[in-house]
Order: sequence, then C-alpha cells, then structure tokens
Amino acid sequence: MSTSARLPYQHVCGPNCRDGQHEAEVQEEFQVARRSFLRDAMVAGGTAVSAGSLSLSMAPSAFAQSARPGNGMASHYYIPAAANTVLWGYFSKSAKPVVEVDSGDFLTIETLTHHANDDAERMVQGDRGAESVFFWDRQRKGVNRRGAGPMDAKVGAGGGEGVHICTGPVRVKGAEPGDILEVRIVDVVPRPSGNPKYKGKSFGSNAAANWGFHYGDTLTEPKKREVVTIYEVDATGERNWARAVYNFRWTPQTDPFGVVHPTIDYPGVPVDPRSITKNEKVLQNIRIPVRPHFGTMGVAPAEAEFVTSIPPNWTGGNIDNWRIGKGATVYYPVAVPGAMFQVGDPHASQGDSELCGTAIECSLTGTFQLILHKKADLPGTPLAELKYPLLETQDEWLLHGFSYANYLAELGPNAQSEIYKKSSVDLALRDAYHKMRHFLMTTQNLGEDEAISLMSIAVDFGITQVVDGNWGVHALVKKSIFPARGG
Amino acid sequence: MSTSARLPYQHVCGPNCRDGQHEAEVQEEFQVARRSFLRDAMVAGGTAVSAGSLSLSMAPSAFAQSARPGNGMASHYYIPAAANTVLWGYFSKSAKPVVEVDSGDFLTIETLTHHANDDAERMVQGDRGAESVFFWDRQRKGVNRRGAGPMDAKVGAGGGEGVHICTGPVRVKGAEPGDILEVRIVDVVPRPSGNPKYKGKSFGSNAAANWGFHYGDTLTEPKKREVVTIYEVDATGERNWARAVYNFRWTPQTDPFGVVHPTIDYPGVPVDPRSITKNEKVLQNIRIPVRPHFGTMGVAPAEAEFVTSIPPNWTGGNIDNWRIGKGATVYYPVAVPGAMFQVGDPHASQGDSELCGTAIECSLTGTFQLILHKKADLPGTPLAELKYPLLETQDEWLLHGFSYANYLAELGPNAQSEIYKKSSVDLALRDAYHKMRHFLMTTQNLGEDEAISLMSIAVDFGITQVVDGNWGVHALVKKSIFPARGG
Repeated sequence: MSTSARLPYQHVCGPNCRDGQHEAEVQEEFQVARRSFLRDAMVAGGTAVSAGSLSLSMAPSAFAQSARPGNGMASHYYIPAAANTVLWGYFSKSAKPVVEVDSGDFLTIETLTHHANDDAERMVQGDRGAESVFFWDRQRKGVNRRGAGPMDAKVGAGGGEGVHICTGPVRVKGAEPGDILEVRIVDVVPRPSGNPKYKGKSFGSNAAANWGFHYGDTLTEPKKREVVTIYEVDATGERNWARAVYNFRWTPQTDPFGVVHPTIDYPGVPVDPRSITKNEKVLQNIRIPVRPHFGTMGVAPAEAEFVTSIPPNWTGGNIDNWRIGKGATVYYPVAVPGAMFQVGDPHASQGDSELCGTAIECSLTGTFQLILHKKADLPGTPLAELKYPLLETQDEWLLHGFSYANYLAELGPNAQSEIYKKSSVDLALRDAYHKMRHFLMTTQNLGEDEAISLMSIAVDFGITQVVDGNWGVHALVKKSIFPARGG
Repeated sequence: MSTSARLPYQHVCGPNCRDGQHEAEVQEEFQVARRSFLRDAMVAGGTAVSAGSLSLSMAPSAFAQSARPGNGMASHYYIPAAANTVLWGYFSKSAKPVVEVDSGDFLTIETLTHHANDDAERMVQGDRGAESVFFWDRQRKGVNRRGAGPMDAKVGAGGGEGVHICTGPVRVKGAEPGDILEVRIVDVVPRPSGNPKYKGKSFGSNAAANWGFHYGDTLTEPKKREVVTIYEVDATGERNWARAVYNFRWTPQTDPFGVVHPTIDYPGVPVDPRSITKNEKVLQNIRIPVRPHFGTMGVAPAEAEFVTSIPPNWTGGNIDNWRIGKGATVYYPVAVPGAMFQVGDPHASQGDSELCGTAIECSLTGTFQLILHKKADLPGTPLAELKYPLLETQDEWLLHGFSYANYLAELGPNAQSEIYKKSSVDLALRDAYHKMRHFLMTTQNLGEDEAISLMSIAVDFGITQVVDGNWGVHALVKKSIFPARGG
C-alpha cells in the first residue's frame, strides 16, 4: 500500500497485506496489535485503512477537520523493538530514522521498559526483541549507549544520563520547526512474556529508587534503600487490574563488564536472582487499576545533539502523565526537520506524582497516527502559538507545566545536569498557570481576567511527577465547559 | 423528638414536626432543605428519621458499623444563618455553642458566603438571615468581629485575620480530645436569592484577589488588580452548571464606618454599585460545572483562643477541597471538649488549587449527621491514630497534606501570621506523602515498602489550594484497590 523506500525493519501493512518478507520480525504481539487495529478499523465502518474514516471514529480530535491528509490511503507501519530500532536514554535530532512516514500514516510501535532486566526471566527471556536490546556479555552490549553522557563514563557508555528505551526516531516527511505534530494513540496493548512459563501474562517493575521523592525519608532503616516490586498484568487485556508478585531490596549488582552498581545508577543492569531475597508476601489481595500509557513520547529538541530522556521539555519527552494512553492525542511543537518522533518508557499504571521514582514499568505496543500541521496553516486555529505539549482526551484538555518550560535554553550549557538541583512543584504550578492562561486566551478567545477566574473555579491542577528532574504540574479543563465548536 | 435544652435558634424537627414556635426564623430555604431531606429519608426506606436507616443508605461510610449511636431516634436540628448563629473569620474553643447535639443527630445548617456583599442586591437583599449578618451602618455591624485579630484593628474589628462566615459552633455531647468526629454530608442545596427580582436563582462571587497565586503575575496592566466575577447558579438544582453574569475591577471602597479599603482587605465590605464598572460580556456561553461544597468545616483547635479561619490545620478548617460535598464524609480529630464543630465558606464550584484566591463563593444549606467515635473505641479500627482530617467519598479516600501539618504548634507564638511567609507545594506534598503512608500502613496493614510502591502507582496527588496560607496537597486513593472489608 505504500511506495516509500524500505528502511530497516519497516513493514508496510494493511488489511490485505500478503507481505511475508519480514516474518522473522513479526512477533506474536504484532498479530495481536494488528488484529485489534483491524477490528477497530472495521468497527469504524470500512475495511480499508483510510485516514479519514479512522481519524474521526477511532481517535476523535478537536482538530479532525484540519487533520485529513488529503484523499490518499494512509500506510500502516510496524516497528518492532530491537537493538537497531531503539534509542536508549536520549533524544537526538540527527539519529538515523527507523522509518519515514507521511502525515496521516499509522504506526504500530513496540516499546520496551528499561526495567525488564529487574526480572529477566519474566520480561526478557524468550522475547527476541527484548533479548536483542538487553543483550550484554563480557564483550558487548546489544545497545551500548545508554544516556546522553560520555561514552567512556565509568558507570557505562552514555553514563545513564537518560534511561528510557524509546523506539524510533520516526521521521515525518515535510516536518519543519514551527509545525505541530499531532499524535493520536489509537491502541495500546501489553507485551506478553516471551517465556512459555508465563504465557498470557505480562509483567512490570516498580523501583522505589534513589531519585524518588520518598528516598531518605522513611520510617524504617536503612533510609536509603531501594526496593523493586514486580507486578503481573493480564496480557489479554481482559482484567483491568495488576497484582504484585514479589519485591526485593536492591543489592549491589555487578554487570557483565565488571562494573559494580551499588544503587540503580545505570539502566538495564541485569539483576542476578541469586543476589536478592524475594519477598512474595507483598500487597496481597490488592488490585492495582491498570492505566496503560507511555511515559516518554515526543519529538527531538534542537538545543543539543544528545539530550537526556529524563527531564520533560516543551517538545514533550518524559511527561509521565498516565492519561497519555489509548484514545488520547498529544500535540507537540516541532523543533527540528523531520520532527524525529520517538516513544517509549511504557507504563501499566502510575499515580499522579510518581512518588517513588517509577510507575509499573511494563513493555507495551501502541498504534499511533501521526498528523502534521504546517506552520502556515496554524494562524487562526487553536494550534497557533502552541509552544508546549498539549494533551487531549475524550473529555478533557490537559496542559503540562514544568519547573522550567524550556530548561535546555533556560539553564545554560550545563542544563542537563543543573536541572536536577533546581526543580520545585511551585515553579511547575507557575508554568502550568501561564500555559493554561495562554490556552484559554488563544483557543477560547477569553480575556485575561476571564481566564484567571475560570482557572480558579473550573481547572484542576495536579502533580504529574516529582522525580524527572524537571518537575511537572498538569492543568486539566473539561471540554464540556466550552460552547460547541462549529463543524 | 428531643429533650435537650433549647438554645437560641435551635429548632428540633422531624417527620411529624408541628412546631411553629420558630416560624420567624424558618426561611423558605429551610422548607426546601427539609423537603429534600425528608424525600431522601423516604427513599431510604422509612418515614421516621432514624439514624440507622439513614446512615447506611444516604451517606455510606466505611465505619457505618461502629457509627450507630444506639437504638434511639436521632434528632434533627435546623440552624439558620443569622448574626447570632455565626462566627466570622475564626474558630474559638470557648465560643458559646449555638446548639448541643448527641452523636447521631442530624443538622440542617444554613451557611453564608462572606462575599455576598460583592453584590448585595443579589446575595443579601430580601434575605433576612444574610441581612442580619451583613448589617452595617454608621453605628453598628451585625457581626462586629471579623477575624481572630485585635478588636481595635484599623481595618476593622478582628482585623480580617480570618474571613469565612461559619455557622456554629455545634457542641457534641461527650466529645473529648482524642476522639474522632465523623461528619456526613447528607445534602447540599444552594441558597436562593431573597430578592424577588431574582426568584429561583442563586448567586456567587469569585474574587481574583491579592492573595491569589496569579497576583502581580499578569500579562496586562495593572498587574496588581483585583477582579470580582459574579456567577449565577440555578437554585432549584436542576441545572448542573453556573454562568458568569458580569465582572468588575475592585475600586477603593469606603465602608459605613468611613474606613477606605483600597484592596479586598476586610470581609463583608459592601461594594457600592456606583463605584464600579460592570462588564457584562464575560465568559459568554461558558458553562461552569457546579460542585457545591463547603470550603471550611472542622472542629476548634486547642492551641489558641481565637484562631484565624484561613489556614487549614490538622483539625480541619479551610481545606477548600471541592470533594467535600454531598455524599462525602469527613473524620476530624477532636482537640477540645465538645468538639465545637462549625461549617461555612460555601462554594458552588472550585478547581484544584483555587488559583486566583477564591471559588464561586455562594451561600449553601447543608444537612449533616455528626457521629462521635470515642477514643477508647478506636484501637483496632481504621480511625486509630488519626491525626489529620480524612475524607471519604463514594469511591475514594482522600488525605490532606499541608505545608505545616499543625502550623499552630510548629510555627510558634506568631504562627497565625508566620504561616503566610513559609508555605510551598513541595512541603504540602511531603506532608501528604507522610499521611498517605500512615493511612496505608495503619488502615490497610501494609508494610512501609508496600505503601511506598502503592503510592507511586495508584495514588494521585493533586494541589488542593495555594491561597490559604498553609498550602494543601491531597492524596487520593480508590477504595476498589483494597479487598472488601468484612461486615
């Protein structure tokens, strides 16, 4: 269905696909994702995957009218997670794209949690994609660079300055700085364990880690402990809650290169099961509501060549809002040619604030539609002047405030380390106030006094996260407040 | 139905009440509230207002089993809002109680917004209760003390150190420090305008004021302006949204005693309509979802004789959480003999953070059931060790963190003024973390590591308010997470 050039792992797929060429990369989860995707497409009223029919019924968007990318049929790409389709721990404007797509195209993208090696038996073993990414022996790592830091860092290449495995980047044809990239999340499914022993189950890890808000402030000793809890999620998606399987206290782990990690200081270090004590009497009978979403999603920043994946920024990234799941749409300002979209840091569930440092970090596969809004078409639309990631759900608009709206520009040449010393919720609330005022004034044509009154009586400000360097506060406003838009 | 001694304005009322003695105080809103109350009671399955039948079906509580106050019939009291049934701007452990009740009794309590004089024509005129409270001529004020400050303060008696009109206090027989007072909100209705011109309508005021988070940080000049927006609410409760009527910029107002108020620096100053410019093109077609609730509710602190109503504290008070509405239950630690419960600061709607300084401040009438849990009965129950206000809704538990959990004790003799210099959201989040950890460990029998993991993946932390001196963060956890309780 597409004539675009084949890049590594690109697999163009549609309802009548007979392409067996990439069978080797097509994991079971692809079949699941594709079936789900096609089923939804059928429900949407047609057997052909046309952008028009899908965009309106599958991922409703307030900007649907302007989002139709012509009358052509959209392509559907599938990107498996593998050592050569991911960036580990960073955004990079000049990374080689995994695939190049047109506005309106669909992508099914596998994403892996960087915590899978907390329990490799459940989250890596038998999963060829995960095995290729997490591969690490005395000589070689499947993915060497982990983070935006120096390649000769003592702790490991990339320094762990950025930790999230992101699949991509995806280059969007024709995208230029000043444009807006609309990302619709059409579907999200958990990634089943590749180990036959755990068939039908997915797993995730929650690390109460040294970067958590609670760290050092505990009732019991040692106050500076790190505790990992492994959770089980139903891979079929039929059960909407997760349960804890066991927890263990982090003990110093020696990686295959011989480096000792006394704390969780580098991503993907394999935990040796013989070195830990599993406590299986943990959170018994407790049902954790499942909220599958992507912690990190966005486009590449322009300010630096390698940018850590940890602090979120005006181009998105590690926003860590659990509402960025199925049915949600996010609008990102494009900062570099091609936009360079990437997604990762999948979560099965998270609470607002992500208090202890992580969510239930759990590999997921998502289906996305990318729609490009050109700068020239923005004036007069609600996307004009958008300088921050804007989240739209079925019923709500959400804006994301950060301690520093554009920390890379605001904090100087050492911004990527300085940011960890300077954040506060108060600053993030200040930024969220500014952004919500801007949103109400520009998209709803309110005066400043009207916007300020409305914010106090009808906008809810919540704490998104306090663990990502650049802390976050989101502002949520219900769509039903506003008069119906025409057309 | 009750044999307790009659105190001023006490009116014992039940299904077969024929008491015409207090006809003069029984306003139309009493009839409305009483009809609504009795209708709900009928639905609950009986014509007699017995505590047992109501407590289980009207305001479900996790502690219902232990809450039944014996087998006797409960009394229903009605407290109109009037100059001698309110405290304006403060809590006081030794204020004369308006009424004394038994555990299990019901009270219908009128509450008035302290912003009613922002538009006296709509919110005071023709309303005998409001007229008695807001009365102010050259010689006399209906309620002279407004705030916990000195009576000879230049700005007015009480100094405006505390602003909320609260009805009460209600003395609870047998309550002692260490007990817990459970307050169930059975019903909440808006107070209709007493002016025939506005029949069937209620009104509220939102002041973007000098204590707002936005103050001084605006795009347009003057940056230090105060703007009042008047909102209309449907008094019949049939329409679930409010609309703006007009706004105006605060201009210096001279009160009847001749004191000039350049800003909103003292509560209840009558706004002279000739001194302001009404802008009626405001928030046109915008529908504000209505969330009627009580901003200020709680029991008297022990630490001082007069305590400002503005900062919330471990005994409750000005928590300003919009979830404290119909169907909610709040548990307060009792700090003084008789508990000395009071409620006021009614709101038609508010967003999390109350950004500009106020909600839609709108008079409401509530029906409450008060249930006393004696200290000796607490061990082994989830209320043991409760040292903060605990909020229960149909589906959730909410705990309230403050910048200072007990600011009166923590900040020394000048705590009531010091608190305004020291608050931050970060501190309030820290306190909310401690309280939620305590709640999970004591009521759900979790270990500390279990509690910390659960908080990160299933507890949402939101910003309650940043305008009440002692800033607030609430922690919300869904009841469905926990296994069903026995009984």
